Amino acid sequence: MEPNPADMGMSRRAMLSASALLPAVSGLLVAHAAAAQTAASADPLPSWNDGAAKDAVLKFVRVTTDSANPGYVPPEERIATFDQDGTLWVEQPLPSQAIYCLDRVAVVAAQQPKLKDVEPFRTVLSGNRAALAKLTMADFVKIAAATLTGMTTDAFVADVGKWLVTARDERWKRPYTELTYLPMQEVLRYLRANGYKTYIVTGGGQDFVRIYSDRVYGIPPEQVVGTMGGTTFGYDKAGKPFLTKEPRLLLNDDNAGKVQGIHAMIGRRPHAAFGNSTGDREMLEWTAAAPGGGGRLEMLVLHDDGAREYAYGPVHGMRAPVVGTFTQALYDEATKSGWNVISMKNDWKRIFAFD
Amino acid sequence: MEPNPADMGMSRRAMLSASALLPAVSGLLVAHAAAAQTAASADPLPSWNDGAAKDAVLKFVRVTTDSANPGYVPPEERIATFDQDGTLWVEQPLPSQAIYCLDRVAVVAAQQPKLKDVEPFRTVLSGNRAALAKLTMADFVKIAAATLTGMTTDAFVADVGKWLVTARDERWKRPYTELTYLPMQEVLRYLRANGYKTYIVTGGGQDFVRIYSDRVYGIPPEQVVGTMGGTTFGYDKAGKPFLTKEPRLLLNDDNAGKVQGIHAMIGRRPHAAFGNSTGDREMLEWTAAAPGGGGRLEMLVLHDDGAREYAYGPVHGMRAPVVGTFTQALYDEATKSGWNVISMKNDWKRIFAFD
Repeated sequence: MEPNPADMGMSRRAMLSASALLPAVSGLLVAHAAAAQTAASADPLPSWNDGAAKDAVLKFVRVTTDSANPGYVPPEERIATFDQDGTLWVEQPLPSQAIYCLDRVAVVAAQQPKLKDVEPFRTVLSGNRAALAKLTMADFVKIAAATLTGMTTDAFVADVGKWLVTARDERWKRPYTELTYLPMQEVLRYLRANGYKTYIVTGGGQDFVRIYSDRVYGIPPEQVVGTMGGTTFGYDKAGKPFLTKEPRLLLNDDNAGKVQGIHAMIGRRPHAAFGNSTGDREMLEWTAAAPGGGGRLEMLVLHDDGAREYAYGPVHGMRAPVVGTFTQALYDEATKSGWNVISMKNDWKRIFAFD
Repeated sequence: MEPNPADMGMSRRAMLSASALLPAVSGLLVAHAAAAQTAASADPLPSWNDGAAKDAVLKFVRVTTDSANPGYVPPEERIATFDQDGTLWVEQPLPSQAIYCLDRVAVVAAQQPKLKDVEPFRTVLSGNRAALAKLTMADFVKIAAATLTGMTTDAFVADVGKWLVTARDERWKRPYTELTYLPMQEVLRYLRANGYKTYIVTGGGQDFVRIYSDRVYGIPPEQVVGTMGGTTFGYDKAGKPFLTKEPRLLLNDDNAGKVQGIHAMIGRRPHAAFGNSTGDREMLEWTAAAPGGGGRLEMLVLHDDGAREYAYGPVHGMRAPVVGTFTQALYDEATKSGWNVISMKNDWKRIFAFD
């Protein structure tokens, strides 16, 4: 669970080099930036196989950071947005937040014993795999409301923090926070090293993802946009203010909601957007159709590697029961629109840092 | 309307020096930071008179940037939030966004002639000063809904941008964007020069303030939290996506709403918060009561200078018809809580850059 020291070094270098890209910097900083660029050009994406996908990332950075290029993007406008589940880390068999909610049902049921006899909680508590697999989106909404709201924001942070340390993915027997895709971590660092602010724009809960985003991706809480519930403000007996998480949806940060979330939380259009499912379609369209100059990049991760991860792309048929999928229609739109499809099988030399 | 070149230089230096405060930076950057610190220590707040308010700002920065001090705050947690109207710029006789809305009524009425016979639009169009002064908060909500929604987000940016260039404050005959308080601009720069991310947290419209925040305050759109309406997503005839601003309130970023906005948009507690009215009370309480270590600073601007600006503090009686005011109860809470009250009359040597 500790940050990798090598990663931290990279991240620090990235930040310094990013600041050095500000216009008209001092001579010292220009020299520093040049050194960082040279080091990076060795190969900033070593976990990627050569090919169109890797080339698209390299070309985007080259074009948008070259002030002589028509595709140049000023540093303050360098915004890149990333879906999380299935784009930055594993989302099968369920996104980790859904597993947190299922794990949390037992705690909530202990506090509210009536829930034990009410669906879908009874099914969750039964642990019956076949029954669990049949839970619907509506069931998950009920489970999310019961497990993600009603506590203070501070209590939620504490509880999720504990769960992240102890919970393990069934297939790899590792904390979920280790199941991030190494090639995408390289893209995050490479973009930041070139002045991009990297944002997560996720259908997952904003409060949930913010708890680990900095440690896991180098993305601070204020650069996480996600599904957002309302809060109520109150005072405890000592007169200290607190916020309670409410089952009132302010933003469903999926599909068109991702565009609304980007507008509300960032207020600028991204120059690069990465996703992996129909839930990311509007975000990529919004990025591609932005007015104003400067290069744009749209990429979709295709899960076509059942051996090393999972296969559930348009030609693979595996159905994700809850999360949006990479449909044939999305594949066709990507082709027509010139979006880049990343084949996990062909484009990624390694999938995980622990491989 | 052009940024002041001297300000830009300061801002650039601030950014470089901020990046230099990252832990374990290279020797070159440490040298650069030391030079910047020395330059700053000449007097980072030249428009402030010596006194308790100025000392509070200087002490806060000294304590929170000294890693040997118990009040030290790591760079990534350096968040400072500022109310806008009455804290960063003039809010009398009305906040500039309210004036934009009143000016905009004529345009809307030309498009929807029926409105000309409906209150409060009839009163606004009459230009009758005495009648205008009696408009209620409920009237302004109707005016805001009619003038701030119904257009695409891109059209709104274009229209506000044009208005900002042509509109003039009646007293100073200057664009509203020149009516910012020079002493507070110095605080913004000084905090940024010491690694703080500065945010606006305003009861005003987030979409409105973001249009000029970078140019006027050096605060990028993504660091503006404000009252936020919903949007709808659609496609034009060419298949390009757009967002339409809707009269559906997602966040009323005032009073407790400021705490909710900070939680939703930043996800960290501020270490410094600045306000000037009861609408900022909860934000200051939230800042003061934050768990975890590190220095905290709460400051309130008291408008007690009728000669150079306006006088409407608790002992001055001037009633702001729309905006929240600095009540006696707020003054008492500030005293009891150890918050710092800034007297514009006594603490500020200059009010405006054009003085």
